[in-house]
Amino acid sequence: MISAPDLISQTRCFDGTLGFYKHFSSSCRSEMKFSVYQPPQAIASPVPVLYYLSGLTCTEENVMAKSGVQQYAAEQGLMLVASDTSPRDTGIPGETDDWDFGIGAGFYVDAIAEPWSQHYQMYSYVVNELPALIAAHFPVLPDRQGIFGHSMGGHGALVCALKNRDRYRSVSAFAPICAPMRCPWGQKAFTHYLGNDKTQWHTYDASELVLTASFPGSILIDQGGADQFLNNQLMPDVFEQACKTAGQSLILRRQAGYDHSYYFIATFIADHVRHHAIALYA
Amino acid sequence: MISAPDLISQTRCFDGTLGFYKHFSSSCRSEMKFSVYQPPQAIASPVPVLYYLSGLTCTEENVMAKSGVQQYAAEQGLMLVASDTSPRDTGIPGETDDWDFGIGAGFYVDAIAEPWSQHYQMYSYVVNELPALIAAHFPVLPDRQGIFGHSMGGHGALVCALKNRDRYRSVSAFAPICAPMRCPWGQKAFTHYLGNDKTQWHTYDASELVLTASFPGSILIDQGGADQFLNNQLMPDVFEQACKTAGQSLILRRQAGYDHSYYFIATFIADHVRHHAIALYA
Repeated sequence: MISAPDLISQTRCFDGTLGFYKHFSSSCRSEMKFSVYQPPQAIASPVPVLYYLSGLTCTEENVMAKSGVQQYAAEQGLMLVASDTSPRDTGIPGETDDWDFGIGAGFYVDAIAEPWSQHYQMYSYVVNELPALIAAHFPVLPDRQGIFGHSMGGHGALVCALKNRDRYRSVSAFAPICAPMRCPWGQKAFTHYLGNDKTQWHTYDASELVLTASFPGSILIDQGGADQFLNNQLMPDVFEQACKTAGQSLILRRQAGYDHSYYFIATFIADHVRHHAIALYA
Repeated sequence: MISAPDLISQTRCFDGTLGFYKHFSSSCRSEMKFSVYQPPQAIASPVPVLYYLSGLTCTEENVMAKSGVQQYAAEQGLMLVASDTSPRDTGIPGETDDWDFGIGAGFYVDAIAEPWSQHYQMYSYVVNELPALIAAHFPVLPDRQGIFGHSMGGHGALVCALKNRDRYRSVSAFAPICAPMRCPWGQKAFTHYLGNDKTQWHTYDASELVLTASFPGSILIDQGGADQFLNNQLMPDVFEQACKTAGQSLILRRQAGYDHSYYFIATFIADHVRHHAIALYA
């Protein structure tokens, strides 16, 4: 029996309902927040569910406030769920010191190094706990799940999908951190959350995972050509090469002139929602 | 010769360009900021221009970050300009004391009472100074202008249009303050900005103005039925009755379940942009 989350606030949007919730997470052993957009179709019968993972510093609110995604979820009849990017206020020393590590920067891994392992279990939270809660308390078809995300959340979406092809039918990403083992953001996070044993790092790096665990169907990625993080942090070329080596189908769209912001996401999110809807309603 | 504004930042969005600018305003005798979305059509030739006025506490950023309006401006070929809601950091004592008065709450009037009259000249800024600057430095058709806004900015849009039917070809509003003389927000602002002479107040109250100065074509208003400010601050019924008395064409849509937020605006802004595009391209 999974406890119902507490409703914090609720707003009507594109003929559906956007709700913000909190609950006690057993994975993270702390309070977690998330948001759910229920499209109008969900009143009549359960619908497929699309998970969104945000980037560094974001919360469960950003994609709902800034991307315009509700319009397309309402068109396509998809439930949309956005998690927070980390536990908060856990009391772990230093969790607020950096904007790219700790709070707002859980990197969607299960930490195994102390002290982070006590609370930072975002992989289990996103893959297991949150979907079980959603299935228990919202009108979804839990065997029809997709996942997407932005930047750190794009990394998270790719990793969750590649490790769980039985649980997700579709995956896409905006400007994902494609090779975290090779970039400063990823190296910092993995060192602290996972320790120095790099065999652990491989299990959360999409460009490594795809070599041994392909995803059925195409992976869709949009990457802005004017993104300030493109070459030193995101490295889509590495993932593209790995997909080629592995025979993984990839649609990598380089969008000239676009940066790393939600204005970039808003421009292309309609295509992403349709990509998921095609797979989730197949 | 009107000086060019300084570009603060620029972002690609829906195949057009979103820019944030600052300049010294001669009307307000202070620095002012504004944002401009240039649709892709503006590269080839000048386009009509649609002004957006924000509500209390907002800046030139809110509508660009939260409403999704760029998508529709790009579809319809309209330049979109959003001003700030007041001068800032003028040094007038008390300007930061209240969230509903002073900074972020200029109410789009020309203040005549001291000390506010020194800087708070938002009516002249929005109607005269900003359009002259836009016409001088952006590819617009300055004789094809529309105006819309939200809440305090909806009030501003109605007042600017009713007082200047020769300058605006179209007007619409989301949850506007329809009768500021009769509501607490308006009474507070008008007392401080305009003084106690209520004949001055009439010149900035849409429900009074429409009795003597009708607008050609229909005014479009969307109002959420679950808006917490509906009855005590917004009073669309008063404006509806005044329009009926005056023979002013009004499309007032009461949207059941919607609140006062940008989620409400995002849901209906496509209709507003189309309403303006029809008039501006006629």
